[in-house]
Amino acid sequence: MDLDLTVGTGDLASAASALVRLVPGKLIDPVLSGVLLTAGRDGVSLAATDRERAARVERAAVVHTEGRVLVPAKPLADTLRALDLEQVRLVVEGSKLAIRAPGARFALPLLDADVHPGVAEPPARVGTVDGAVFGSALATVATAASRDEALPMFTGVRVRSEGARLVLVATDRYQMAVASLGWRPAGEPVDALVPASLLAEIAKQAAGAGDVVLHADRDRFGLSWSGTHAATSVLDGSFLHESKVSVSDVDTTLELEADALAGAVRRVGLYTDARGVLLLEVGDGEVRLRGADQRAGEAEESVKATVTGDRTSQAYQSRFLTDALRPFLGGPVRVEIQPGMRATVFRAPEPADLDLRYVVMPMLPPKN
Amino acid sequence: MDLDLTVGTGDLASAASALVRLVPGKLIDPVLSGVLLTAGRDGVSLAATDRERAARVERAAVVHTEGRVLVPAKPLADTLRALDLEQVRLVVEGSKLAIRAPGARFALPLLDADVHPGVAEPPARVGTVDGAVFGSALATVATAASRDEALPMFTGVRVRSEGARLVLVATDRYQMAVASLGWRPAGEPVDALVPASLLAEIAKQAAGAGDVVLHADRDRFGLSWSGTHAATSVLDGSFLHESKVSVSDVDTTLELEADALAGAVRRVGLYTDARGVLLLEVGDGEVRLRGADQRAGEAEESVKATVTGDRTSQAYQSRFLTDALRPFLGGPVRVEIQPGMRATVFRAPEPADLDLRYVVMPMLPPKN
Repeated sequence: MDLDLTVGTGDLASAASALVRLVPGKLIDPVLSGVLLTAGRDGVSLAATDRERAARVERAAVVHTEGRVLVPAKPLADTLRALDLEQVRLVVEGSKLAIRAPGARFALPLLDADVHPGVAEPPARVGTVDGAVFGSALATVATAASRDEALPMFTGVRVRSEGARLVLVATDRYQMAVASLGWRPAGEPVDALVPASLLAEIAKQAAGAGDVVLHADRDRFGLSWSGTHAATSVLDGSFLHESKVSVSDVDTTLELEADALAGAVRRVGLYTDARGVLLLEVGDGEVRLRGADQRAGEAEESVKATVTGDRTSQAYQSRFLTDALRPFLGGPVRVEIQPGMRATVFRAPEPADLDLRYVVMPMLPPKN
Repeated sequence: MDLDLTVGTGDLASAASALVRLVPGKLIDPVLSGVLLTAGRDGVSLAATDRERAARVERAAVVHTEGRVLVPAKPLADTLRALDLEQVRLVVEGSKLAIRAPGARFALPLLDADVHPGVAEPPARVGTVDGAVFGSALATVATAASRDEALPMFTGVRVRSEGARLVLVATDRYQMAVASLGWRPAGEPVDALVPASLLAEIAKQAAGAGDVVLHADRDRFGLSWSGTHAATSVLDGSFLHESKVSVSDVDTTLELEADALAGAVRRVGLYTDARGVLLLEVGDGEVRLRGADQRAGEAEESVKATVTGDRTSQAYQSRFLTDALRPFLGGPVRVEIQPGMRATVFRAPEPADLDLRYVVMPMLPPKN
């Protein structure tokens, strides 16, 4: 095994830490906690897999000797991040990969690259989206997925194409987020249930990128943007559809400033019972939030609103209201309320290219 | 019970959160988790105690009705912090203390102030120190105390006066920090073992203050600064003395830039065994840090140093080196090494009004 290259430290550090965040790695298996470092004519690539997920990050580098090695990912990323240095040299020395800086040498053990399963090439390209819009949609939709690994079905985001629109849906059964945005299809349609934790990380990394390319086949889904590619095995997500939440009985519609309501939720939410539930009472030209807790006391706050239709009041967990309002902060939000134990929908009053809906299930009101 | 006042929201919010941090409160006892709010001619005071500790914070306020109430501390602090509002009104309404803002009302239950043990007046004044110097000394010395409540003796800082100097000492038996600074005595001498956690919090709050007044009697120790007073019961700290660490056999002295050594510790510290130990080898005109871990690999880094005396090398836990160097960052540090399992001392090369020493015990070097 051989390899010798010089590279910008910040460049390689960002690549290594992006990779570690995309494939957190299974520490139990030293081979899968490794990063495959490949120096080729065009630069250096870092790749990792945990068998489910795979990611590759490419960076420009001055390659003195081409080659490929497998080294532990975390010490590589940590060392690069800790170096205060413009450029760094990586060179194989015996059974180690040396990271060389003036006066310093860090030597990572070479792992056996031959027993590594390899990092598969991405599946076929199926289309392109704008990175900023897609990142913003993912950030919201991934919030609504469950973090409970005991119910893996609800930890995913369904990514589904409908002609020139891409629809993202996630739910943990108490809340649901739905985003629809334009995309440029260039292959087969997409329909995949993708782990929300991976998409949330990609939302952060790809938000600054221009175009993001979607890749998919029957078993895998991937995204690539500015020198980075991430892919994962997928599940069947057809059980998860926005039409399963009925919104046909909306009788009360509010329009108000998202920041004003979110501020009131933050304050009145300090006074909720053990379930974290507060009451949203609809009045004339305003809504009133109420909360009560035996220990903390009670709170109420009014927020100006344009109210149309009936005056149906509901109770919600305050944390779901906070999540539902976040994508609309800085502008107006429309709240569509149905009577009984039926869903409430949060959406922008005016249609936009990114159509975002956040659905929250009401709770039984607090007993007082 | 009665009380009615108007006060700057930010002012009262900072007072309530300072109080909660000085007396974190025992949630089990609702009375002791309460804050005594007293509105008098001069403004409002907030006070709390957990029987060990006591604190009082005073603020200017427009008092409409004087009075005293006991309310839960945490919801009061959280609500005030969450309000986006210049001024707020606090008024007793029936069995509640209402926090009133336009369109909003938050009502805290009144607790029974008669069963509250009361917040004692501070003990007698014994002298004055400069807040910034004292805060900086406390921040360093409190670091060296143990966080292990099973050994309460080592969780304290001994505060001792020696004429016109005030000496602060703390140790967890592996490291010791000693600070000596000028003070202006105005009463009895001081000698008290004070909980480090309280002093660390005071170091943050008092760092911006001008003068800090020390209060002490046989059983209690207190500090007051800009409208705030905090006091605590004390222990006998006479077992804790800087002279117990012998520094008579220093044979090797280094002088180097603290930032350069701290950077090398941060990087080479990524490559330490389970004990976190790295080796500091003394050479000619430089020191070399070495670390090795079976899994991560090995590292070495040199740092320029002026070396006098012998070339005694030692091994240390990297986290203790990081703590020992922190007070000297941005300037030079002198390292005084003794052979064998004897202490190493970190100090400033030039004497200053604040004389700070950080003592670290060496470890057996890593086996390779």
